[in-house]
Amino acid sequence: MLLNRITKSNFININKSCLKNYFCSVSSGSSTTTSTTTTTTTANLLKVKRDDRFSYLNKDDISVFKKIMNDESGVITDADDLVGYNHDWMNKYHGNSQLVLRPKSTEQVSQILKYCNERRLAVVPQGGNTGLVGGSVPVHDEIVLSLQSMNKIHEFDSVTGVLTCDAGCILESLEQYLEPRGFTVPLDLGAKGSCQIGGNAATNAGGIRLLRYGSMHANVMGVEAVLADGTIVDCLSTLRKDNTGYDLKQLFIGSEGTLGVITKLAILTPAKPTSVHVALLSCDSFDEVKKLLIEAKKQLGDILSAFEFMDRSCIDVVLEHQPQAREPFDSKFKFYVLLEVSGFNEQHDNEKLNSYLEDVISRKMVADGTFASDSKSIAEFWKLRETITESLGKAGAVYKYDLSLPMDQFYNIVEVMKERLAGKNNSMVCGFGHVGDGNLHLNISTPKQKYNKEFLGLIEPFVYEFTSKHNGSISAEHGIGAMKTEQLHHSKTNSAIQLMRSIKQTMDPNGILNPYKVLPN
Amino acid sequence: MLLNRITKSNFININKSCLKNYFCSVSSGSSTTTSTTTTTTTANLLKVKRDDRFSYLNKDDISVFKKIMNDESGVITDADDLVGYNHDWMNKYHGNSQLVLRPKSTEQVSQILKYCNERRLAVVPQGGNTGLVGGSVPVHDEIVLSLQSMNKIHEFDSVTGVLTCDAGCILESLEQYLEPRGFTVPLDLGAKGSCQIGGNAATNAGGIRLLRYGSMHANVMGVEAVLADGTIVDCLSTLRKDNTGYDLKQLFIGSEGTLGVITKLAILTPAKPTSVHVALLSCDSFDEVKKLLIEAKKQLGDILSAFEFMDRSCIDVVLEHQPQAREPFDSKFKFYVLLEVSGFNEQHDNEKLNSYLEDVISRKMVADGTFASDSKSIAEFWKLRETITESLGKAGAVYKYDLSLPMDQFYNIVEVMKERLAGKNNSMVCGFGHVGDGNLHLNISTPKQKYNKEFLGLIEPFVYEFTSKHNGSISAEHGIGAMKTEQLHHSKTNSAIQLMRSIKQTMDPNGILNPYKVLPN
Repeated sequence: MLLNRITKSNFININKSCLKNYFCSVSSGSSTTTSTTTTTTTANLLKVKRDDRFSYLNKDDISVFKKIMNDESGVITDADDLVGYNHDWMNKYHGNSQLVLRPKSTEQVSQILKYCNERRLAVVPQGGNTGLVGGSVPVHDEIVLSLQSMNKIHEFDSVTGVLTCDAGCILESLEQYLEPRGFTVPLDLGAKGSCQIGGNAATNAGGIRLLRYGSMHANVMGVEAVLADGTIVDCLSTLRKDNTGYDLKQLFIGSEGTLGVITKLAILTPAKPTSVHVALLSCDSFDEVKKLLIEAKKQLGDILSAFEFMDRSCIDVVLEHQPQAREPFDSKFKFYVLLEVSGFNEQHDNEKLNSYLEDVISRKMVADGTFASDSKSIAEFWKLRETITESLGKAGAVYKYDLSLPMDQFYNIVEVMKERLAGKNNSMVCGFGHVGDGNLHLNISTPKQKYNKEFLGLIEPFVYEFTSKHNGSISAEHGIGAMKTEQLHHSKTNSAIQLMRSIKQTMDPNGILNPYKVLPN
Repeated sequence: MLLNRITKSNFININKSCLKNYFCSVSSGSSTTTSTTTTTTTANLLKVKRDDRFSYLNKDDISVFKKIMNDESGVITDADDLVGYNHDWMNKYHGNSQLVLRPKSTEQVSQILKYCNERRLAVVPQGGNTGLVGGSVPVHDEIVLSLQSMNKIHEFDSVTGVLTCDAGCILESLEQYLEPRGFTVPLDLGAKGSCQIGGNAATNAGGIRLLRYGSMHANVMGVEAVLADGTIVDCLSTLRKDNTGYDLKQLFIGSEGTLGVITKLAILTPAKPTSVHVALLSCDSFDEVKKLLIEAKKQLGDILSAFEFMDRSCIDVVLEHQPQAREPFDSKFKFYVLLEVSGFNEQHDNEKLNSYLEDVISRKMVADGTFASDSKSIAEFWKLRETITESLGKAGAVYKYDLSLPMDQFYNIVEVMKERLAGKNNSMVCGFGHVGDGNLHLNISTPKQKYNKEFLGLIEPFVYEFTSKHNGSISAEHGIGAMKTEQLHHSKTNSAIQLMRSIKQTMDPNGILNPYKVLPN
């Protein structure tokens, strides 16, 4: 049903592979387009007031933009054509922009921003618009600055593996370019068919390869960005080592378009692994899961490419709602681990995984285990993990939290929530996620599809306070966007928020870049 | 002789392993303490004027600091005791500070900076004082804020591998703490016996493991820092994933103490490899060196831990000045590659390296090759690479440049300099370095020990202009410090320098933190 819902929204090309990730990342609480609120915080229900500092767009402005663009196709004002830029793919965030600009060069981006800054016209930079926190959609009438027409690959150095390209390049197209050259992009997201590399950098996108290759802060070598006043900052270094002054590119990575518009990037791409193996293991306690991770790091070292876990409740809900799914072992267990290795030597990787499995079984860290090397079985294993969210969606309303927590509290929050919600609204609490990255997806499901404010009150702000108390992150990989600005204080101290404000004020004194996002209003 | 010179300076504990790295990184142009200028740029010969904005230290200030410190041993004013803090280990940079403060807590750092900011007293934060560009030494009378008394390890999570510690922890002591636990620090420097982890982060230290594990921007998970006005910014996250607002810690990494004082860090530490193999290969052209690197990345994947190169001139100078050194092969070749793999399975790593060697030899990418797995032979191979700088020092005056260059220009600069300097001052031009990281050590040696300004004029600014023209970096890993402020424009555009200034002004409006460093005066 979710598939239908998304397919209906014709304004954004989301391919099937995207959906998988979205299933894992966001709610699929109901079969209707309007009920996605079942799974969100109360924060996004309250729309912040339009900022009086900003001017309203007029005809003269549009004439100026047409002149800058020198091409009518880059200036969109038609109401029908604006729709796709004004809403996010979940149909959860809605703006009212009257103008979309699609520049084709950094120079045009610069001229646009210079003019907007002088005229106090607010701007929302937009990549693939595949975000999950409303960061790339206008809140009011901000001009949409779409990077989609800037999508050229400029250079690839097959010795260093550094790829230089425009911000608007689709992630999947970069992968397609790199694959025949024996390289791969260092991040992989379900949204790869639509998301843009500039947006990936601007939001510090995570994904399933982070465990192996690190974040965008590690993999982006250089950035060209345009500041709010139109200044082009060229830090488009393709060098792995460059200690000449402040590493300015880091400021743009993860700042969600509020400090500047990324126009070009240089990314370090690793050699593409040629062999993949997956194991599915079961444990009786979360302590065993942790031990398995420690041993995997030791024995599998750098071929470890995924370490995901799910508790029994996740398996139950998948078995109930996925007709193809099978009970993975003869008995039931409290926890399941999906472990992937990928490397460059089929035989070695096979042997290593076998040896690891023998070791952890003989040391009784594992209750049962199985592994696969052929792509069909690998896909089946992954399906068990990947259909959890879809199955939860079918089961009822889902209250979802994307948290990072230190290891000693990682699963504890699930136990605590179980106790807290015991007997309330027939709820079911489960946990799964990227345990290798410390990233937990906490899910609370109730049989009724309808959003229940009173029940939500039992979860929030408790879950954020718990996360904050244990120095966790209330947004492990999705960012703050428009959704979590009022929750930011749970993961950032006052002095850190103050420093963020100072930097924003310095780099964008008129606040025209992606207003109402990231910082609390 | 250099060894003697350093041993004489009793103010800083540099162990033998340090020297190796220093040999690779800095000049050893002469046997006297005063002649290190032979190898430096003209910039460091001109001392910048004291900034009139800063107050002069008085007795009342010292009373205040004694009160803050609550312990006389943390307040150093004795002239003899100040010596070690006023000079760098090379005896190249000299300050005239009258006060060293050694706080024991973040709270004390905060109170000190708050007072200094109000009184307009300039401060130079100092870690192990092992830098190579004068960044940690006062230029005039700045108060030295030494982190050496803040050296506790606070926490280690053996599941995530994240270590939390004070900024003043010595790198080697962290390695000693991690080793029995099966982990290792993600960076390794010759200065490890003296350098501090806070300084490593503040200078974004490189070292030989960068190829494998990435830079400090990738490996530091969290930072606690104190701003110029005493504000404590707690971003000491131990989380691998945290997308809640700007990644503020990145601002402090690599800013060389000019934006804040790092007081605590959380670092991601990898599992320690259990097997190491090294190969020495020879090639007839630099194109073959590049091909070897491409194949190494493909076939050795993530077990590749070093890929160093040296040209024939390097080998010649080592053979001439190192009695123990042997001609590595029966014939002489233009280029030599030292390749290291390290992993977790002795047999597999051995097989992979063998298979790689067979392949590149059969495809004629290699003229000759040999490899070692026992620690003695491995050490011998490394010695060939590690004694280059020492040997160059024995040969005469050395003009050294630590550059990053794109692969197509990487060795070209050596050829260009050879042509430019042909027949001048009996000079010899050679190149070696971390080719896997794009980091070239360009060395120009003349038989006479004395520094020659006219000859230097043939090299500079040409070498910086060449580097700049090809989008390289004039400081691959050493930073800017006091040495290269006036050269910064060769690697940073005006708009980038302007943005750096704005950020400095925002975070340290009175400019008290490490003045005269990083930014051009």
